[in-house]
Amino acid sequence: MKEKVGLAPGTAIYTGTHDVTYPEITVIKYTLDEVSTKSFRDFESVKNDLSLRDETTPIWLHVEPISDQNAISQLCEFFHIHPLVVEDILSVKHRPVAEEYEEYLFVVLKYVQYTQEGLIFSQISLVQMDNLTISFADDSPQNFEVIKKRLEKKDSRMRKEGNEYLFFALIDYLVDQYFIALETIGEEIEALEDEILYTPTKQSIQKVHNLKRTLMELKKSVWPTRELINTILQSENINEKYYIYYKDTYDHIINIIDIIEGYRDSASSFLDIYLSTLSNRMNEIMKTLSIISTIFIPLSFLTGYFGMNFKHETILDSQTAFDWSNIVMIIIPLLLLGYFRMRKWF
Amino acid sequence: MKEKVGLAPGTAIYTGTHDVTYPEITVIKYTLDEVSTKSFRDFESVKNDLSLRDETTPIWLHVEPISDQNAISQLCEFFHIHPLVVEDILSVKHRPVAEEYEEYLFVVLKYVQYTQEGLIFSQISLVQMDNLTISFADDSPQNFEVIKKRLEKKDSRMRKEGNEYLFFALIDYLVDQYFIALETIGEEIEALEDEILYTPTKQSIQKVHNLKRTLMELKKSVWPTRELINTILQSENINEKYYIYYKDTYDHIINIIDIIEGYRDSASSFLDIYLSTLSNRMNEIMKTLSIISTIFIPLSFLTGYFGMNFKHETILDSQTAFDWSNIVMIIIPLLLLGYFRMRKWF
Amino acid sequence: MKEKVGLAPGTAIYTGTHDVTYPEITVIKYTLDEVSTKSFRDFESVKNDLSLRDETTPIWLHVEPISDQNAISQLCEFFHIHPLVVEDILSVKHRPVAEEYEEYLFVVLKYVQYTQEGLIFSQISLVQMDNLTISFADDSPQNFEVIKKRLEKKDSRMRKEGNEYLFFALIDYLVDQYFIALETIGEEIEALEDEILYTPTKQSIQKVHNLKRTLMELKKSVWPTRELINTILQSENINEKYYIYYKDTYDHIINIIDIIEGYRDSASSFLDIYLSTLSNRMNEIMKTLSIISTIFIPLSFLTGYFGMNFKHETILDSQTAFDWSNIVMIIIPLLLLGYFRMRKWF
Amino acid sequence: MKEKVGLAPGTAIYTGTHDVTYPEITVIKYTLDEVSTKSFRDFESVKNDLSLRDETTPIWLHVEPISDQNAISQLCEFFHIHPLVVEDILSVKHRPVAEEYEEYLFVVLKYVQYTQEGLIFSQISLVQMDNLTISFADDSPQNFEVIKKRLEKKDSRMRKEGNEYLFFALIDYLVDQYFIALETIGEEIEALEDEILYTPTKQSIQKVHNLKRTLMELKKSVWPTRELINTILQSENINEKYYIYYKDTYDHIINIIDIIEGYRDSASSFLDIYLSTLSNRMNEIMKTLSIISTIFIPLSFLTGYFGMNFKHETILDSQTAFDWSNIVMIIIPLLLLGYFRMRKWF
Amino acid sequence: MKEKVGLAPGTAIYTGTHDVTYPEITVIKYTLDEVSTKSFRDFESVKNDLSLRDETTPIWLHVEPISDQNAISQLCEFFHIHPLVVEDILSVKHRPVAEEYEEYLFVVLKYVQYTQEGLIFSQISLVQMDNLTISFADDSPQNFEVIKKRLEKKDSRMRKEGNEYLFFALIDYLVDQYFIALETIGEEIEALEDEILYTPTKQSIQKVHNLKRTLMELKKSVWPTRELINTILQSENINEKYYIYYKDTYDHIINIIDIIEGYRDSASSFLDIYLSTLSNRMNEIMKTLSIISTIFIPLSFLTGYFGMNFKHETILDSQTAFDWSNIVMIIIPLLLLGYFRMRKWF
Repeated sequence: MKEKVGLAPGTAIYTGTHDVTYPEITVIKYTLDEVSTKSFRDFESVKNDLSLRDETTPIWLHVEPISDQNAISQLCEFFHIHPLVVEDILSVKHRPVAEEYEEYLFVVLKYVQYTQEGLIFSQISLVQMDNLTISFADDSPQNFEVIKKRLEKKDSRMRKEGNEYLFFALIDYLVDQYFIALETIGEEIEALEDEILYTPTKQSIQKVHNLKRTLMELKKSVWPTRELINTILQSENINEKYYIYYKDTYDHIINIIDIIEGYRDSASSFLDIYLSTLSNRMNEIMKTLSIISTIFIPLSFLTGYFGMNFKHETILDSQTAFDWSNIVMIIIPLLLLGYFRMRKWF
Repeated sequence: MKEKVGLAPGTAIYTGTHDVTYPEITVIKYTLDEVSTKSFRDFESVKNDLSLRDETTPIWLHVEPISDQNAISQLCEFFHIHPLVVEDILSVKHRPVAEEYEEYLFVVLKYVQYTQEGLIFSQISLVQMDNLTISFADDSPQNFEVIKKRLEKKDSRMRKEGNEYLFFALIDYLVDQYFIALETIGEEIEALEDEILYTPTKQSIQKVHNLKRTLMELKKSVWPTRELINTILQSENINEKYYIYYKDTYDHIINIIDIIEGYRDSASSFLDIYLSTLSNRMNEIMKTLSIISTIFIPLSFLTGYFGMNFKHETILDSQTAFDWSNIVMIIIPLLLLGYFRMRKWF
Repeated sequence: MKEKVGLAPGTAIYTGTHDVTYPEITVIKYTLDEVSTKSFRDFESVKNDLSLRDETTPIWLHVEPISDQNAISQLCEFFHIHPLVVEDILSVKHRPVAEEYEEYLFVVLKYVQYTQEGLIFSQISLVQMDNLTISFADDSPQNFEVIKKRLEKKDSRMRKEGNEYLFFALIDYLVDQYFIALETIGEEIEALEDEILYTPTKQSIQKVHNLKRTLMELKKSVWPTRELINTILQSENINEKYYIYYKDTYDHIINIIDIIEGYRDSASSFLDIYLSTLSNRMNEIMKTLSIISTIFIPLSFLTGYFGMNFKHETILDSQTAFDWSNIVMIIIPLLLLGYFRMRKWF
Repeated sequence: MKEKVGLAPGTAIYTGTHDVTYPEITVIKYTLDEVSTKSFRDFESVKNDLSLRDETTPIWLHVEPISDQNAISQLCEFFHIHPLVVEDILSVKHRPVAEEYEEYLFVVLKYVQYTQEGLIFSQISLVQMDNLTISFADDSPQNFEVIKKRLEKKDSRMRKEGNEYLFFALIDYLVDQYFIALETIGEEIEALEDEILYTPTKQSIQKVHNLKRTLMELKKSVWPTRELINTILQSENINEKYYIYYKDTYDHIINIIDIIEGYRDSASSFLDIYLSTLSNRMNEIMKTLSIISTIFIPLSFLTGYFGMNFKHETILDSQTAFDWSNIVMIIIPLLLLGYFRMRKWF
Repeated sequence: MKEKVGLAPGTAIYTGTHDVTYPEITVIKYTLDEVSTKSFRDFESVKNDLSLRDETTPIWLHVEPISDQNAISQLCEFFHIHPLVVEDILSVKHRPVAEEYEEYLFVVLKYVQYTQEGLIFSQISLVQMDNLTISFADDSPQNFEVIKKRLEKKDSRMRKEGNEYLFFALIDYLVDQYFIALETIGEEIEALEDEILYTPTKQSIQKVHNLKRTLMELKKSVWPTRELINTILQSENINEKYYIYYKDTYDHIINIIDIIEGYRDSASSFLDIYLSTLSNRMNEIMKTLSIISTIFIPLSFLTGYFGMNFKHETILDSQTAFDWSNIVMIIIPLLLLGYFRMRKWF
């Protein structure tokens, strides 16, 4: 957002990190009988291709990447998409949101991936018009390969239902990615729990910190997605018969939120466990030190006492005294050990 | 849920861990005068049996296990149950929920058991139609033996009221299981409290952690159950005269939530008590060490002083000096012990 | 609740701990001019007595104890009280609640007492009908002696107002008991605060824990009482002219909740203070140990050095060296003490 | 409240700590042209004075102290004030509240002062009728001198507006006292922050505890004041044209709540800082002890070794050995100091 | 606020810290074709200049500084601005707020800057009338240079849209400043995180404390700004066609709040990390001390034993004993080191 401070609202500026490349525009037309997929790198060809279209054939237009802000603006203008929407498409760190316009429904979503480097959110924007679904992707979620395969399966519901169902399927697919990310995170949490309980190191607390941050980021991305579904459920651009599907997706989101909250609870517990483990260790260390010191410091005093050079320390001449001093030096440690045992110090 | 990522919604897939077995379908017909119970392992026999039914006889169909997804789909199709409902029946980790359909009311509940290994949630799905209650169980809650016995008792309210009351009785029975689980947990909490107050070990903090997790899981399962009852109270498939019973169940759930919250409060306190017990122990250990060190370190210096080999240390030749040194070595510890006593160190 | 798991709802079972005794039924009839009080131990006499009643004379029926479930059921049946209400009367750990029925208003409340053993909640159930107030008590709140005395006072408002006002007076009396309990708890909190600030012991943390639990129990009992008053304020069994009185009681409950929240805040602070006091003590102990060690350990090295038996340690033959070693052994401690003073260690 | 447990509601009992004194009743009549102020110590004179009043002259009656419950009851009866209101006037620890009656608006407020001994809340009750404002004060807020001076200023808005504006001015004045109290508290917080950061003592934690309690008390008193203003804004006893003024007061209260919340946040931080300061100090102490011990304990072993009396310890006869032992005893400490330096221990 | 305690509401008093200076009043008239900017230091000239205005030309009046309360009052009176609004303009620590009046919309906002000394909030008040926008600034946000430049750009939307859009642009500009402040804070947080994880010092905790306070202040300033936008969205002084722009600003504010909450979470984590780092360090220190002590204290006892002067300690005459004592003194440390290694102490 900061890049755009001071600029007039509605200014189309790409805020991502990719180099400027003309987008690949994939046009997928499908009927019950056939699916045609063509990719173009210039907009004229797209226009030509679309002009041939039969008004009732569902079309899916996938645009990727979106780093060329002029190309995206030009394309959106062609479909009468509002400049503020274009601005949102190009602001790749926008919150998930659904916005209802008269002629279309606009949705911003995230394709989430959890990798070694942490969470990666790629922004996907969807515009749903009559018989036309346009998707804009910054980083590629493998070109929605899974969805394309389902489209290619003959007699699949996707082929039968037209592109309102396609629109739903894309959203459902993106929401499902959260489960995959959470599964990996769940495994890490279990590993971390073991680490903290049995072999905590200095790094553990940092891992807990990172985990918390990851969950916070996920939460921040899922919560607005929930509202997004609510907006769709009230949209006039969506046929009522699909509501039952969105309700299912809504249930999935509630489930995701539940899992995140559970994980956050665990992460909070980890800190407590970590601190108490540290305290326990300190107690261990201090016990060892105290036992050794308590046993030998008095003994050392005794040897010191018998090591004094007083001329009149006549006790030093006595065999009995020596024998007794030896006995005492054996008994004292034994008594102390017994005492520590009794106090359960070891 | 993760098993199903990428699949089209409404795909009937069993997500549990049991081997695929054809379900045992128990058909219970009951009137005021008699109860007939038959079990089948093939669906044709069930159909035949049902075809003989008198429209007004209440029937309870219990299906278990549900690992054979085709069998379940086939059975549900026969009763015109929606594919999304079938999907939910087979997703054995679904949240408790009630869904109102035109011809039936669908409810997902949990049969909760608290064992040595922790909480076990078995999913029970109920479909309530006119004069027909279908229950699907993944793990068997002893085949609802208690309910069956109440059915067999002549003149019981269950026999008189028809199967809307049976439907209620099943839900009420499942909610009541939470009390049994909570009773065991309550006993564990009391034991844990004693342990933490009097004999805390390294494992205690882990037990607190497990307890918290258990309570969190219970809470996550009870909360949606509360909403479930609310949905039933607004359902058009349920006769108003049963509302008073559901309100009673609702009260039980509020009670369960209250107990869980109280236990969670205790669990939180346990951590504080544990940490302060650790601190107290550390103080004990350090006091012991400090007392010993403070008494003997100065004495050792004295013996060292009188153990020096300076030729001109003429004090060593004096009987008086020796006597006084002995006296001092007795007085110093006594003074220090008095001082520590005064400071309430022991 | 656990005792009743698996039973059909509406089963009248006494869940308290008292032995089964036939209740003493006290019938109090009062008019502006006179009050008649009779006690019976069989129900027939009560019926006879009631049959003599003038429709317009307010009657108060106090029933206690309620351990004889059959007697209570029989009595309630006589007054057409619903079985679910009877069940609630006999479930002596029921939450405070008000339930509106067509012919009467049913209220469950607690008589709270704070004793050495902690909080004691005795359940009081009230049924308010036209001109008839029935109260059921498990443990006796001294038979509502205070209320009876107010009834006996001629020209008191209670005598003038009829038994809707009596019903209010009973509720108001029970709510006021919370103030008495809180006063005692408040004194304990002040004592505990002093203890923790000045003479914390191992037991202190347990006292804080118990205090928190007590306050939590009180809170759990007061909160539903607030809702209870709201239900009464909407009840059609209560004349509007008494609303102003219930609003006053409502204000008292808000006040009680405020006090409880304040006490809970204090209890939370106590833990912080306790832990920081422990830390402070540890610092004290370690300072003492460190000062002693830091002073004498180097000195002991010196004496050790001069106690070595090297033949060529010619320094031992020098008078000056001996004198200087003595001086050094006096100066080092003084310097160190000065340093510790400067660092504000003592 | 506790003093009144068991009494019938509406019983007029003074719950404050002042001795019973007949109140001084100050009657202030004011018009655009003149202000007359008279004080009486008997009610007959007040009645005579009021009987002379012109119906349209605004009158302010200030009554103080209120320890004589009979006098207050008598006065209130004269103005047809409801017994429950009288009870609230005399209950000097009542929460701030506004109550709408048909003929008047009743408001309970606090005059807050922050002194060395902590917060002092003096209760002020206001009754606003047509052309008559009655104020009751337990402890005197200097007799509202500031307001009186504003009344005496000719052409002031107060003189022009009549006593609905006077009523507002009194409330506004009392709310503004919170700012004065918060300013003093703010200065204490800054001093406390410096103390905790630079010179924490055992008392610091107690100061934080007291601060938290003070803020909690303020909060408890301000929150109901906010609701009070809302009640006034809906009152039919207040002319709509004054709403804009009350909204301003409402803004002030929001501001007060904001400041309190900010201070509470600071107080919470203080505890964290205090504990971490304690930990830091402990680390300092232990570092000193460890450095000294680690340096001298091995050296003492060496001197001990060379102080042994073995006949065959021939090393003691060697000049070289003595020289080397001296060198080693200088090098070991230097090496250790270097190591500690490297580890940044000092 | 405190400066004004006791004063009548609506009293125009400047509460800022600047010296009293007559404001510079900048009059900017703009049409599609031209922009004229004139600055005046007396109000007569402003009036003359405005009298020449064409009713439909949008005018922006920027007034700065506002330390001369009389000048501001006079100017506001000329434009019929309510005294309570004038009071708010001059109270430079007012909360952000929007107030709807019949003839104008009044908005108080903050120009936020984050500098070395922390957050600086300069108050900007805006009054939006038909074709006239008046802005009052206490500290200058560089005279809104950015906005002026956008105004000077020919064919800019600002020139086309009239001054309702100018009003929006000013608000949008002020909201965007929060992003700039947050960016700097974000960098500081990253630096602080590194510091706390790797090189925590005593000052770190103070930095965390300051960070928390800064975020709290930001939050307190942003939250009311959100409500402010809501008020504008319901204002009748704002044309509906601008709603879409304010919704965008609203989204930005939500985004700002999200970022602040994320930062606050981090700050809370920092404290936990800091404390656990301190604990870890303490463990390190104690381990070092314990290892040294545990190794050398028993050895010192041995040397002490062999340093005793008992005449009959015949062991001292034996060469074998001496050799063995040497061997033991080498083996004991090795064994202990092995033990500590095994326990993972180093």
